[in-house]
Amino acid sequence: MAAEIVNQKDGLESDVIDPAFALHRGGKMAVQATVPVRDADDLSLAYTPGVAKVCSAIAEQPGLVDDYTWKSQVVAVVTDGSAVLGLGDIGPGASLPVMEGKAILFKQFGGVDAVPLALDTQDTDEIVDTVTRLAPSFGGVNLEDISAPRCFEIEARLKEKLDIPVFHDDQHGTAIVTLAALRNAAKLSDRALGSLRAVISGAGAAGVAIAKILVEAGIGDVAVCDRKGVVSADRDDLTHVKRELAGFTNKAGLSGSLEAALEGADVFIGVSGGTVREEAVAKMAKGSFIFAMANPNPEIHPDVARKYAAVVATGRSDYPNQINNVLAFPGVFAGALQVRATDITEGMKLAAAEALAAVVADELSAERVIPSPFDERVAPAVTSAVAAAARAEGVARR
Amino acid sequence: MAAEIVNQKDGLESDVIDPAFALHRGGKMAVQATVPVRDADDLSLAYTPGVAKVCSAIAEQPGLVDDYTWKSQVVAVVTDGSAVLGLGDIGPGASLPVMEGKAILFKQFGGVDAVPLALDTQDTDEIVDTVTRLAPSFGGVNLEDISAPRCFEIEARLKEKLDIPVFHDDQHGTAIVTLAALRNAAKLSDRALGSLRAVISGAGAAGVAIAKILVEAGIGDVAVCDRKGVVSADRDDLTHVKRELAGFTNKAGLSGSLEAALEGADVFIGVSGGTVREEAVAKMAKGSFIFAMANPNPEIHPDVARKYAAVVATGRSDYPNQINNVLAFPGVFAGALQVRATDITEGMKLAAAEALAAVVADELSAERVIPSPFDERVAPAVTSAVAAAARAEGVARR
Repeated sequence: MAAEIVNQKDGLESDVIDPAFALHRGGKMAVQATVPVRDADDLSLAYTPGVAKVCSAIAEQPGLVDDYTWKSQVVAVVTDGSAVLGLGDIGPGASLPVMEGKAILFKQFGGVDAVPLALDTQDTDEIVDTVTRLAPSFGGVNLEDISAPRCFEIEARLKEKLDIPVFHDDQHGTAIVTLAALRNAAKLSDRALGSLRAVISGAGAAGVAIAKILVEAGIGDVAVCDRKGVVSADRDDLTHVKRELAGFTNKAGLSGSLEAALEGADVFIGVSGGTVREEAVAKMAKGSFIFAMANPNPEIHPDVARKYAAVVATGRSDYPNQINNVLAFPGVFAGALQVRATDITEGMKLAAAEALAAVVADELSAERVIPSPFDERVAPAVTSAVAAAARAEGVARR
Repeated sequence: MAAEIVNQKDGLESDVIDPAFALHRGGKMAVQATVPVRDADDLSLAYTPGVAKVCSAIAEQPGLVDDYTWKSQVVAVVTDGSAVLGLGDIGPGASLPVMEGKAILFKQFGGVDAVPLALDTQDTDEIVDTVTRLAPSFGGVNLEDISAPRCFEIEARLKEKLDIPVFHDDQHGTAIVTLAALRNAAKLSDRALGSLRAVISGAGAAGVAIAKILVEAGIGDVAVCDRKGVVSADRDDLTHVKRELAGFTNKAGLSGSLEAALEGADVFIGVSGGTVREEAVAKMAKGSFIFAMANPNPEIHPDVARKYAAVVATGRSDYPNQINNVLAFPGVFAGALQVRATDITEGMKLAAAEALAAVVADELSAERVIPSPFDERVAPAVTSAVAAAARAEGVARR
């Protein structure tokens, strides 16, 4: 990289040769006024003195803030830069391009305004305090790229403290899309979820959330593996979160290695960044589903996986069945904001997964268990389902 | 108000009859993508995997964040809702319409992106900590409607801690525009600033900042009055800030009431929200300048003031010479961001005032000592002057 750099003040020379740098120059987003400010009359309505009436009304009836400001349509995209993409702990500044990207995806796919906020702290208490203080300005909080296990505590505490939706996308976005793909894979193979035994490689944010949503959705059994093997109650090296995980997964009582757990398993879900050998995959049950979602390098190459599995999915856009969070988060927040939900509940996530799966229910094939990120039916379907679920679960405010 | 409300969830009935409410429905701003996200190719540049290269480059060279994200063109508009317009301490939610208004004025007049952040705390330490943690995502911080004396400490501590410009607009925006108007009033009357004795009514954010900038600009003398009269060294009831104020103002050694101080004074500057009797104004020096800036009710009616003064200014748009912060803050930040200034210095503020005054230097009249907020020459002039001053003062990073 160093050789590419000509002048720090004016960016990189690679600008002209690398389209990613050229595209990022000056950032990817802007703010715009949605009301006119052309003359004194406009100004006297949008700003003083007219604005004072609106402020006074909100001071009297705090709920009016949702009607007369952008609060109820804007989401804070919050990170501490500790677990950014596959890059790891690169800090807040370096994480900003991802957060801006997320913000424009919110807009493009869900019509939701979003503001990237990369925080200069990785302390759990400080993150919780900071986001709590920011809450009056936002209709929701999307936590992003915060490393495990802090992400679990941060999300749980914020959900407890705030009356707006808080959603850690690395957990739940991934979990929703994975469940949707699995539902369709099962449907295609005429299997019931309850008949499937799944093995998840990775016990971080995504792995834990996927395990939870699979259990909620009625999976037959699921074992989660970290670097030391199956997360099982007999291990004495488990964090708080993994102990909890051991409590509601692994009914079969497996222990030992990931590869051992894969023997006879129906589903492999990789969110580890590690690798799985072909020999291990070959020992899975016949007609298995392999979701090798590590990016950019899947745990096992999809061409290899396809030799053994009925359905293969990855995180990549250049193979069929891309498990991409953008299929979930824009609609999840759009639906939650539409009804001014106070929370994003488990029921809303399950509804999102069902709606997402249903989009391609009539077009199912082994190469199409999940819609394309550019399928225009996705966001409206997820939005409606999430809004309806919020009402059904009693967390909608309108 | 209560009678007007039909349904809290769906706003106010007055919507249909009051244009301010109608205009505010749904808020006044939105976020927009400035790059396309139409297909998989776009997505792979703006988001994964392309974005990872940009993140890595910033991780290696942190300064690149200014080139490849919107950071260097976005300002946080931060309030705690403690001193909003003339409404006082109405809290963060009710302050949001003003902050949004400010944000769209930043965009409209300065081309600067701005994000309203109304904080759920009025604790000085917590505000400083919160803004410090947010700093990686912003090119500057505009503090807004934070009550005195906390506003002074908050600004001072943030300026010390952060390497981006921090500017409390209620102080410095008002001070810059006031100085510009005073410069032109003096020019029109062929007076030197050094020959003028000014009296300021109000020792809050605006009063203190105006006193400072007038002294820096070389005013002959200035006395600042609070509710108890002239802020003078012999008083034993002064806050820290007012003790400091007493140290660099009131060379004449006045004490006693505002009205007494006005006897023979050349300039009255009202930023108090109080009133001044006609009898007191009548005793000012001949050819005086009266800036009665309280809003919506000037300290003395401009029609009355005009009977005695050579130049009258107010904060209102329906009288000549409106002292409006929008003449300053967009250009001040646009100039500071343009050169990626690490600070907004006293020299930059003085340069802003001079540039603002110069816009109408050739069109001066008693009714035109300051340009209209819609004079399109203003923002470019202030921007250039502030950028040049930043370079001259050594706080520019490019």
